[in-house]
Parts: sequence; structure tokens; C-alpha cells
Amino acid sequence: MRLSELTHPNQLHGLSIAELEDVARQIRERHLEVVSTSGGHLGPGLGVVELTLALYQTLDLDHDRVVWDVGHQAYPHKLITGRYGDFNTLRQQGGVAGYLKRCESSFDHFGAGHASTSISAALGMAVARERRGESFKCVAVIGDGALTGGIALEAINHAGHMPNTPFLVVLNDNDMSISPPVGALSTHLNRMRHSAPVQFISDSVEERVKSLPFMGGELPAELDLLKGSMRRLSVPKVGAVFEELGFTYMGPIDGHDIERMVRTFETAHKVGGPVLVHVVTTKGKGYPYAEADQVGYHAQSAFDLSTGKALPSKGKKPPSYSKVFGETLIKLCQQDSTVVGITAAMATGTGLDLLQKAVPEQYIDVGIAEQHAVTLAAGMACEGLKPVLAIYSTFLQRAFDQLIHDVGIQNLPVTFVMDRAGIVGADGPTHQGQYDISYFRAIPNFTVMAPKDEAELQRMLVTCLQHQGPAALRIPRGSGEGVPLLDEGWKPLAIGRGEVLCEGDDLLIVAYGVMVPAAMITAQLLQEAGIKATVINARFLRPLDQALIHPLARRIGSVVTMEEGALAGGFGAAVVESLSDQDVLVPTFRIGIPDQLVDHASPQQSREALGLTPTQMSERIQEHFCLNSKPSLVGQEAPQALST
Amino acid sequence: MRLSELTHPNQLHGLSIAELEDVARQIRERHLEVVSTSGGHLGPGLGVVELTLALYQTLDLDHDRVVWDVGHQAYPHKLITGRYGDFNTLRQQGGVAGYLKRCESSFDHFGAGHASTSISAALGMAVARERRGESFKCVAVIGDGALTGGIALEAINHAGHMPNTPFLVVLNDNDMSISPPVGALSTHLNRMRHSAPVQFISDSVEERVKSLPFMGGELPAELDLLKGSMRRLSVPKVGAVFEELGFTYMGPIDGHDIERMVRTFETAHKVGGPVLVHVVTTKGKGYPYAEADQVGYHAQSAFDLSTGKALPSKGKKPPSYSKVFGETLIKLCQQDSTVVGITAAMATGTGLDLLQKAVPEQYIDVGIAEQHAVTLAAGMACEGLKPVLAIYSTFLQRAFDQLIHDVGIQNLPVTFVMDRAGIVGADGPTHQGQYDISYFRAIPNFTVMAPKDEAELQRMLVTCLQHQGPAALRIPRGSGEGVPLLDEGWKPLAIGRGEVLCEGDDLLIVAYGVMVPAAMITAQLLQEAGIKATVINARFLRPLDQALIHPLARRIGSVVTMEEGALAGGFGAAVVESLSDQDVLVPTFRIGIPDQLVDHASPQQSREALGLTPTQMSERIQEHFCLNSKPSLVGQEAPQALST
Repeated sequence: MRLSELTHPNQLHGLSIAELEDVARQIRERHLEVVSTSGGHLGPGLGVVELTLALYQTLDLDHDRVVWDVGHQAYPHKLITGRYGDFNTLRQQGGVAGYLKRCESSFDHFGAGHASTSISAALGMAVARERRGESFKCVAVIGDGALTGGIALEAINHAGHMPNTPFLVVLNDNDMSISPPVGALSTHLNRMRHSAPVQFISDSVEERVKSLPFMGGELPAELDLLKGSMRRLSVPKVGAVFEELGFTYMGPIDGHDIERMVRTFETAHKVGGPVLVHVVTTKGKGYPYAEADQVGYHAQSAFDLSTGKALPSKGKKPPSYSKVFGETLIKLCQQDSTVVGITAAMATGTGLDLLQKAVPEQYIDVGIAEQHAVTLAAGMACEGLKPVLAIYSTFLQRAFDQLIHDVGIQNLPVTFVMDRAGIVGADGPTHQGQYDISYFRAIPNFTVMAPKDEAELQRMLVTCLQHQGPAALRIPRGSGEGVPLLDEGWKPLAIGRGEVLCEGDDLLIVAYGVMVPAAMITAQLLQEAGIKATVINARFLRPLDQALIHPLARRIGSVVTMEEGALAGGFGAAVVESLSDQDVLVPTFRIGIPDQLVDHASPQQSREALGLTPTQMSERIQEHFCLNSKPSLVGQEAPQALST
Repeated sequence: MRLSELTHPNQLHGLSIAELEDVARQIRERHLEVVSTSGGHLGPGLGVVELTLALYQTLDLDHDRVVWDVGHQAYPHKLITGRYGDFNTLRQQGGVAGYLKRCESSFDHFGAGHASTSISAALGMAVARERRGESFKCVAVIGDGALTGGIALEAINHAGHMPNTPFLVVLNDNDMSISPPVGALSTHLNRMRHSAPVQFISDSVEERVKSLPFMGGELPAELDLLKGSMRRLSVPKVGAVFEELGFTYMGPIDGHDIERMVRTFETAHKVGGPVLVHVVTTKGKGYPYAEADQVGYHAQSAFDLSTGKALPSKGKKPPSYSKVFGETLIKLCQQDSTVVGITAAMATGTGLDLLQKAVPEQYIDVGIAEQHAVTLAAGMACEGLKPVLAIYSTFLQRAFDQLIHDVGIQNLPVTFVMDRAGIVGADGPTHQGQYDISYFRAIPNFTVMAPKDEAELQRMLVTCLQHQGPAALRIPRGSGEGVPLLDEGWKPLAIGRGEVLCEGDDLLIVAYGVMVPAAMITAQLLQEAGIKATVINARFLRPLDQALIHPLARRIGSVVTMEEGALAGGFGAAVVESLSDQDVLVPTFRIGIPDQLVDHASPQQSREALGLTPTQMSERIQEHFCLNSKPSLVGQEAPQALST
């Protein structure tokens, strides 16, 4: 069967194993073809091609529900659920999303982007099924890395307590998060992987299947076949954790052997309670470069299929904020042995992989466990260490309570570096760093800041570490501004003090973080239109530099705020609140992300869609304040509308 | 030894078991005496009296660190760490806190209030100890209920991966959260509790202790003594989950047998890696009424010691918001079988215990697992159920990411009822519901509201359930306003529409939720001072009723906002942002909780401390707007200051 003709996963049902293997080959081809051209997640999808086909062979996707954790491994799923033709638009504006979205396909039963939610969601569907008296199957497919996230463990605890609710968890064990996984559960799985060379079924499966009324006391042929191998093996502890937590454990099985998986899933569906099938897969399977470098090929920009090498990018870019952060932290760690960098399974994304190599004893990876990371850091701070947590803005949402309860309320000196704050581009709505400004606004005792460029990032990091209280800074995705880095003698910034970058009497622009350079370009464009702006680099969200902003706002009379974050309760809101509280009643135009989701696209396309490019901002400002962009205004009095 | 003379826990070191038992008796006496008089947590503390004494007998509290989970079971700890004398001020303004606070005592090594953080925090201290090359002990004491929280499981996973880091987790297994615990882990513990009648040590302890260099291959006497009983027992799966996760498991042991516990803790300290000691306690131990009704006596208002009955409260109060919610939800569940109430181990606090009794098939308790609760509900909503999650405002913080990622972004119809929103009183800073307004501001697709009284709560609940998207409403702690309840024919409210409650041309008060009745009293006080106010019951935070507020603000010219929540990014901020965006530049005075922690006190005392009583608000408004409170102004023109 040609993959291009496969538009409904139920078409798989009649296929032989050999035919399925041929479909698998075609999926890998298309997967590699598209991702090597447009970039995207590579290793996760290649690893689950056979798993997807085998699972769907045993399901009726018109009724049964499958929840893929995270969603970045669901490219094979997409290719056999009607998105083969459009797959070349992957992660592009208006194209196929890089994660799962309920609005993209009726086969995407639950959206995701963050890890560890699939068991909860699929269990919710199973609860609904029981209440409705229906019988569709509910399946969660979760990686071994994601299984360490607290919500996944909470869900296992709940599901294991429902012995009569049929529910299948497929553990896709590739022995990796994005980086190698950490934690005792990983060690436990590792022991299992290496303890059982062939498939087996634990006693409890046999007992449960035997006791099913329709079995009439007879073992199904498949089970009987397996019984022998099971009895031969003496691996008393395999699956013990899951068995003790109420699951029937089956595995480990080879996640690239379709036939074995089909038989196992079919048996699993008959158990009648919570079952965990432990499938061992190879991340990047079928593409040798990806198998050999599983971290590097987790996600890729465009690359040459034959060599596996990234295509040369156009023009040399300045180092990314993440890289500057990582390299700066190395120096700070070398100067101060109490500084410790902490990541929650995102070493490469945050630049902490550099620290891991350079100063491994001052580096900790806790796995996918943001909540634990924050409270661990709080405990470390109690004992005089200076923990620096590097977590994406969007993932730090998961530790919101710990930010308040363990760090903020106790006023402990922990530093948070939020990477990917603001527009993230191709990863889409689940990953946009658009909420951190507003969720940090009300957390007690926190000092919160954002640098205008990568050199200011260096100073802010020093500022955070010297500050005797909790501090957070946000940095954007991607390249810095290309300014010279500070090599030594970094001085901390004065807490709560912004700076004036240029002066003009027509307009006051107060910008935060990555919007500062954009504000400077906007000011230049406005000047060309005859409007002179003062630009403030606010630097601090908390405390806001009222002493700087208020007199200028009062004098200039028209204020624009700029932020790459949600407008509701955001940075501009902080400025407006502050002005209003002091009865500085001046017209203020807040520019930022309105109350909407920001879809996947390139960062530039997203900014254009939101009116956040300097050209657009210049036009919006003139329109908002009814300014005519006449060159003749240069040097003249401020126009009428500005002097209200 | 007299308890009153025990000011440092190291004074316990010389005491015999009999003397420790006498101290235990005195602790119980004082505990009961104070809690029966002033109210507070009863069962948790009574259950751990012996555990506390035995543990401290084996520690040097000048150096060793103990982190008590939640902190509500730490009254015995407080009584032997210098707070015996002040203990009668428990939970009162300026007195001893009901939870642990680092600022209250140098023996409170980590503060808490929310469950499940202790393992992470204590592990952080152990990490710091290793880096500093020191040798103090780090101990977390956690209940079986709290152990199901995701962060605790994340921490177990991390700690079990550090085989050479000495670290002790004491599992205080009383087979209860506040309510009976749920989940597979609880079943697992239950099996253990009933499988081993006497103390034993697993093989791995023996091996590890044997392999310690200073042991010289000889077993310590204590271990040898235990070996026999261990060998006699055949309980292969006891502790399997913890052993598989890298912990040395010891237990279960009787948590009221000081001698046994001392011996076990001493052995545990010698293991040299992560150890879990499983201690079985009886919640409420030593007070028969509390032992018999463990849910009811978890926390208590003042009661008669001899009968165990609550002292009659002064005056008959209207039913609480929680109770009205619970009873209303019962009716809605009876009318619509797709409605399901969900709690995360807080059935009694939220009023869902009423649903549990009346319509148990439409009730789910997921245990202490707020994150899972939210995503489970999202999964249920995908399949057409109408889940209603009743979670305290402060505990919902823990599911902030799930609110955004699983419910908001996917626009799923899930209803959140945030109890204890606003000032909570005696529970203090960790429990104040002061952040929900600001953290909900930016979450996409949510409709967010708060009722002015318990009848409006009923209509809002109907509104949420009929709404085709995510919705949240907040209700305060304590009694309703005493208005008549709606018995039938509840009509939903128009989404995003507020209402005018009284009219006046001098001032516009826009109030949210519990502040609406306070605003009405304030308006009355202002009227007595000659100032006539229009009062708006905003009802909705998202979407805000701009169509109602803006014209009135424009016409009246002076605006006051009132909310019981953080001012930063809060309700008043939403009003100010909205006015500013439309260039309605009017002086606005935002009343709410400023950027500070709100300490434990009675709710009334807290409101007084924050200037939130009607009398204070009336005075603050007059002062802010420079209004003279002259009766002669009644019926006259609005004073000058108001017409700007």
C-alpha cells in the first residue's frame, strides 16, 4: 500500500506484517524528506514508526482514543491520518503543526506540547467512557523521560486505583528525554530493559486474562505461546513498580517488531484494567546519524540527508542568548563554587550543556520535573548555595506554585533564567513564552528583569546572583543583538533602575527586554516621520523604575509601552497601573501580545501577525496618537494630539 | 522532665524511653488544651508525638535538618523547640503560626503550608551539604497522602538516583490525607501495613550496612537483633516500589513505639544513601474522639475537651459559600448526569463531601494531585462530560500550567470553583487566595467571574456549566451574605455583563466578588459623608464589562476599584488597563491587597491590617480624592476634586 493513499488509519487493518513494514519504510522516507528540508523533530518520530502501526492495527480509530504525550513523536501518526500531502508544510505558517492539536484533525484526540500530560488526559476519557456506558479503548503513549514528570506519576497512582477500568499506557522507552534521562525510575527501566532478552508476560496478566468470563477458562493461543518463555525467565523485579501500583505490566518488548507488538497490544486490550506495555525503541531508528547522536537529532534544522550535516545557515549570526548565558554561567561558577546550574531535562536548549561539560560538579539535571527543580533549589538556597535554574518560560508555568510557596514567600535567593520568553516561532501556542511577565507580577519578594541585549544579560546574571532574594530574568529565543560581550569585571545593575537610551519630546517609549532594540528602530522610523521619542530600557519589571518613568511621562505626555508578552496584566499594565496610582493620567498605548493564541510560524511571521515589527509599531503609534507622518514636522512643536 | 523546661530538642538526648513517653503525654496535654481553646489542626500533630521525639532523639538539631511536609503536624515540634510558652497564641495575630515558618524559629528549617514539598527541599539541603563537604543529616517527614503529590514523586525519583547521598525520608503513614487517601500507592502502603506485624529490615539494608567500611564486616548489634525477625517474615513485595526506586526501605514500624523508632532511625542514619522509614501512626492518637473521627478532627474550631463537641459559635451564621456550592452542585448533578464534581483530597473543605454522599457516582477524589485533576478533567470534557473542579485558590496554583496548556489553549469546557479565594485568616501567607485574579488574567479562552453573594454563586455555577468553554469562579472563605437561595429555575448570567447596584454622581465604585457587599456598605458610609457613589458589581473579570464601566467612568470621573486579591495585575489593574486603552483618563484608586504577604490572623484582623474594611475604605477614598467628609455636601454638586 502506498502511504499517499493511506488517509484513514483503519486502512491498516487488512495489511500483513510485511505490508506494514513497507508502510513503515515509506513513513521513514517521508519523515526524513520533510524534516531534512524544513527542520523539525526527527528522532522521536523515527523511533515510534512501528509502534504507531502496530498500535493502530489493534484499534478502531473512529472510536478508540489515543493520546500521544508531548506530540513531537506523532509525525508517523500525522502521516497516516490524512496529513501526508500537506506534510511538507510542517511547522510552517498555516501548515501542519509540529505538535498535536485537536483542531487540526479528528484523530488528534488531545493536544500537547508539554510533557507528561497524556495519562491524565486519556484516563479522563476512560472515566467519561465508563460514565457513558461505552466501550471504546483509551490509550496513552508516553516516553520514559516524560514519565518522571509529577503529573504523570499522579495519573499512574490514580489509574492504578481503578482496577476495573480498561486503560492502556504504552511506555515508549527509548532511554532518553531530549537528553539522557535521569532518576531512579530510569534506572529501574534500564534494569528491566537489560534483564529480559525476550518478550514475556507477568503472572498477573495470565491470571487476569484467565479470569475473563468470555475466555471460558482457556488461555488464548497467543498467551499460551508466551507462557513458556515467561516461565523460563526469572526476573522477579521486572515491572514491580507498575505492578505494585495496580497496573498489569507487559514487557519489555522490541518496539521495532510489529508482529510482537500487535500480539501484545491485542492481549493488553483484553486485560480489562490498567495495563502498561513497556516498549523499547531506538530514538532515530532507521537513520544512522540520528541513531548515533540521539541528543543532536532530537530536533533539527534543515540538513543534508546523505551526510546528516546541517545545511549552512544564511549569514553568520551572533551567538544565541542561551549560549551567552551558558558561557557566562561557566565563568561565574568557576569564580564561585556555591553557584550551581540546574536544568529540568533541557540542557541543550538552555545552554546548560556547556556548563555540564565545563564544570560538571556545579551542574544538576533533575529530569522532566520542574516543580521538584524549584523546591530543590529553594532547599539549596537555605544552605548557602546560589542555584540558577534555566527553564523555558513556558515550562516554568509548571512550577508556579513552587515559585510562590517555596521561593517567593520564603524570600530565598534563587535565580531563574527563563529561556524562550516571548515569541518562539515554529513550536506554536503550547510553547509561546507569553505568560511569564504577567504570572510573575504578583509573586511576593521577586525581583524580575529582562536584558536589552546579551551583554546586559551577563550583567543581569551577576545582579541576580548578588541579590539577597529571589530573582528572575527572561531571555528570548535565538540570536543576540551582536553587541560585544563583557569579558570580565561585570558589575551588577542597580535594582529597579532603568535607563534612557535616546531622548525626544514627542513621545515616551518604555520598552522591556527584547523589545528595547525594536523600540530603538521604531524610534528611528518615527524620527524619520518627524516624531521624536524618548526611549527607556526599563530593565526591571519588579520593581518598576517609577522615578524614571513618571516625570518623563508627565512631561512628554504620550506613552507607549512595548513587551513581547501577554498584554493582560503584563509589563505595559504595570506601567499603566503605576502611572494611574500616582494620578499621572497620560494617554498610553500598550504594545504586546493581545488576548489570543499565537500559532506556529517563523518568529518574524508571528511578529508581523501581531503588529510587533518596528515598521508596524511605528505605524500603529502614529495611527493611535493621530500623528501625521509629515517630514515637515521635524524640529517643530509636538503635534496637537500629543499635548493632551 | 517538664515540657515547659524543654527549650531545645537536644535536651531530649539524655532521656530514657519512659521519660520520653512522659514528655509525649505532656505534649498531648498541651496540644489538646490549646487547640480545644483556640482551634487549629488536631489529628495530624497528635499522630506524630512519638515520631517527633524518637526522631529528635537521634538527631542533633543544632546541625541536622528536618523538613516537615505541610507543617500542620508540627505542633509537637513547636512545643519542644522553644514555643511551649507562646503556644496558646497559636494561629492568632502576632502569635505562633499554624504552619512552619523559617522566620519563626531557627529549628523550622523549611516553611510549608502546601503538601508534598518536603522531599525536594530536604534533598536540596543534602545536595548543599555534599557540595560543602559537611555531614549534617537531612530528613523529610511526609504523610502518605502528601506522597501522592507529583512533586514528591519527582523528588523520590531524583533522590533514588543519588545512591551515595545520605538522606532520610520518614513516611508518616496514617492512611489518611485530610480525607481517606486514594490511589494505588495508598493501596500499596496498605498491603505493607497489613503484611508485616513486626518490624523488619530488608535485605538491602543489611547488605549496605555490612559494606560500610567502619563496620569492619560486623553487623551492629541492633541489626543483628532485627535480622531474625526479618528472616522469619516472607513479605516479598513490601517496599518494592521504594526499593526499585533506589531507596533502602525500612518498615513498617509502629509509630507510637518510641524505642523501636529510635533503633530504626539510628540504623537508617548509618545506611549512607537514600532511606525510607515507613512509620505507621494513628491520626489523632491519644484523644479518642479524634481517633474515631479522623476526618472531622483533622482541624477543629474550639471544642469541649471532655465531650469532643464543638463549642457553640456566637450567633447563627448563614451557610458558607462552600456549603451552598456543594448543595447546588448536587442539584445540578441530579439534573444532568454529565456533570461530575472533582476534588483533590479536599472534599470537606470545598463542600464536595455533600456531593460524595448524595451522588457518589458523579464525584471523584483524585488525592493530592491538582495537576492530574485538571488534565483529567480536560480529558473528560473532550468526551462530553462537564467536570467541575473545586480547588482552593491557593492550591490551584499548582496546576497553573495545566490551566493554560490543557484547558485554556484547547478551549475545553471545564469549570473551576476556587474556594478560599481572598483573605483566609488563620492559615496565613501560604494559604491566602490572593493570586488567582492576576494569574487568571492572561490565560487564553477563560471566562472568569466572582459572585457578590451565595445566590449569585448559584447562578454563576449554572453559567459556567452552560458556557461552551473554560470558566472559573472564585468564592471566599466563610459564611455567605445570608441572602435567600434560589431553589429552582436558575438562569445563567449574560457572560461579561456587570450590574449597577446603586447610583450616585460623585464616584464610581467597581467591585469584584466578595468586595461587592463591602462596596455597598462603603457607599452607604460615603453617602453619610455627603458623597454619592455608583456601585457596579463587575461579576466578570474576563471579559470585563467595558460597555458598562467606561461610560460611567467617563461621566462620573473618579473611579475606585475593590478586590480581595493582589493589586499587581489584578482586577483593578484590568479596569485601569481597559480605561487607559480607550483613553478614558480618569483618576482611579485601586483597593486590594498590596505587594506583601498577609500573615495569619482572623480574616477581620487581616482586612483591618490591609485597610479593607468598609469604614477604612470609606476613609481611604475620601483621603485619596481629597474629599471633605462634610454632611453639608449631601445633595449638593460634586466637590471640585471629583470633576477633573
